[in-house]
Amino acid sequence: MNGRTTDAPATAVPDAGTGRDAILRAARRAFAFRPYAEVTLRGIAADAGVSASLIVKHFSTKERLFNTVADFGPAADLLLAAPLDTLGRHLVLTLVRNRREQQGDLLLRVVFSLGDDDERTLLRERFDQQITRRLAALLTGRDRALRAELIAGQLLGLGAVQSLYRTGAVTHATPEGIADLYAPAIQRLIDG
Amino acid sequence: MNGRTTDAPATAVPDAGTGRDAILRAARRAFAFRPYAEVTLRGIAADAGVSASLIVKHFSTKERLFNTVADFGPAADLLLAAPLDTLGRHLVLTLVRNRREQQGDLLLRVVFSLGDDDERTLLRERFDQQITRRLAALLTGRDRALRAELIAGQLLGLGAVQSLYRTGAVTHATPEGIADLYAPAIQRLIDG
Repeated sequence: MNGRTTDAPATAVPDAGTGRDAILRAARRAFAFRPYAEVTLRGIAADAGVSASLIVKHFSTKERLFNTVADFGPAADLLLAAPLDTLGRHLVLTLVRNRREQQGDLLLRVVFSLGDDDERTLLRERFDQQITRRLAALLTGRDRALRAELIAGQLLGLGAVQSLYRTGAVTHATPEGIADLYAPAIQRLIDG
Repeated sequence: MNGRTTDAPATAVPDAGTGRDAILRAARRAFAFRPYAEVTLRGIAADAGVSASLIVKHFSTKERLFNTVADFGPAADLLLAAPLDTLGRHLVLTLVRNRREQQGDLLLRVVFSLGDDDERTLLRERFDQQITRRLAALLTGRDRALRAELIAGQLLGLGAVQSLYRTGAVTHATPEGIADLYAPAIQRLIDG
């Protein structure tokens, strides 16, 4: 784990010519947009411009590579970097802008892990710890755990429709226009 | 297509001992909760209590079976069966109650199709036609298409967290308690 945001370009950690960072970036993209079973090391290798055997050398297996990029910490840092009274709008703007700039979704990966009971448990646990519980800890008032889960739902739903409607109204709307419609609902759950 | 709700028990169409209805029920369950690539005819056969060859006899291939159950029409009939001024609450209560009673989600299947560009196009198109456009046609005022897409997002998000938090607060809350927190946001998008 190198502390970078999902799908963000490599800047902090020098790659030293090993291809490791390129592999991690390609793996984040692959697991962010495709069900686990459909992701292949060969596809990640092609995207990263390296050989599949280099991935095996660095990460051994698809499962270990998956677990290496199963980290929502940087996403949480971005998403939660606003005061509570404006957090709803910040969450929506950050999700929409990040998707458009990075061609990735900060959270949606976890949805692809829903069908499975084995290797993706770690992803779900990390989502819970790094996103939902961290959000719940910020909240005050009643039903904090429930409200945090429902906020997570609204964020995942926003990611889902952006993926579903790649040529739809949600793709053509401005981030601010989406936030005007979608953020008050999230803010309401934040305020409790 | 036999007009039944996703995952609902067979009642309307007699099975006549062919196993066809049992296969359709098992297929809806399988595709509702697992990525397409992870679903096998053998698994569906085991769930339905029939042989895999019987599925092949009735439906030829996994893709054709998938397309047969790729129908959100009955889900839309259930979800949209309320006047506009109380539709937000009705949507939430219907989604939550149906999931708990039927062990299935009315809409979430479409999320598992997001990573793919080929055989699941039909599912996405039907979701768009049968859920989002039908919803948009009910709305009045500005940004109807965008509002309908965002409502669809909130419904998918609610399905996602219920799958994600099978032992969480959202699983223990009453449908009415979830609706109290989640429905006003949807109603706001309906009202425009």
